[in-house]
Amino acid sequence: MADGKALQDAFVDELRDSYDGEKQLIKALPKLAKAATSPELRETFESHLEETRGQVTRLEAVFGLLGEKARGKHCEGIAGIVEEGKAIMEEDFDDAAMDACLVAGGQRAEHYEIAAYGTLVAWAHALGHDEAAELLQQTLDEEQATDLQLTDLAVRLINIEAVSEDEDE
Amino acid sequence: MADGKALQDAFVDELRDSYDGEKQLIKALPKLAKAATSPELRETFESHLEETRGQVTRLEAVFGLLGEKARGKHCEGIAGIVEEGKAIMEEDFDDAAMDACLVAGGQRAEHYEIAAYGTLVAWAHALGHDEAAELLQQTLDEEQATDLQLTDLAVRLINIEAVSEDEDE
Repeated sequence: MADGKALQDAFVDELRDSYDGEKQLIKALPKLAKAATSPELRETFESHLEETRGQVTRLEAVFGLLGEKARGKHCEGIAGIVEEGKAIMEEDFDDAAMDACLVAGGQRAEHYEIAAYGTLVAWAHALGHDEAAELLQQTLDEEQATDLQLTDLAVRLINIEAVSEDEDE
Repeated sequence: MADGKALQDAFVDELRDSYDGEKQLIKALPKLAKAATSPELRETFESHLEETRGQVTRLEAVFGLLGEKARGKHCEGIAGIVEEGKAIMEEDFDDAAMDACLVAGGQRAEHYEIAAYGTLVAWAHALGHDEAAELLQQTLDEEQATDLQLTDLAVRLINIEAVSEDEDE
């Protein structure tokens, strides 16, 4: 029996979830950048903010390809991750420990999006929306690159600095 | 100046976040399994439930290694993802489309945990907690394997079935 909502409906719902999620991140990323002490970390958040604006435009193009109006649907997952980030920023961490926590928060957001765009790309292919799949794949690639950039920054710089900060106490 | 909370404190906070997150998933996974139509998907959720119980025990061992009491701290990120899962299950999707949505929800949870355990492993290494790092790496490997298993199931079976369900309408 197939009289309920179908995969095509789920695909549009999922696009709306990501559209809202990206808009939440456009508000959150400047706060993460401001809270960062490491100039490299601040830059990573700032350049990902620019990238995120492009991802919103790309989602609007995907809505357009499907003949759908671009609109969001409250993304609870990103909302929870943003709340966690706010709670971290209110804590009294030493500078490098705070940077390490900001990376941890940022990577949670990236991984949420990697899961979301991974789903969107797979569904777009399955549904034959090849042009949409290509656009969504570009965003997926960007999210994965940002995640790797944050890992590199943490392992190469921030975690080491945070440990030496611990030892100074 | 280093007089605030340090990386070691952040590490314990992060363990508490994951401990609570895993416990939330122990409640959520049986619901996902029950909502699944595909027997393979149901089995994946059920076997991951068993694995999750082992991950909780492993976190308790890590708390023990640090001389800390095992306790949780409300994990907002997983709470948001669980809420999204509940909202999906209340929708009227066709069977295979519902399965595809359950995979999407499950992969969000896996990716959140991949980010969380990735952070925990990196911090454990940086702080010299090698035995803890090894235990946490085992969980990280399990989360990554479950994520890949869900991708495989979706691409090989569920998405194809969901599309043919769409075409039947």
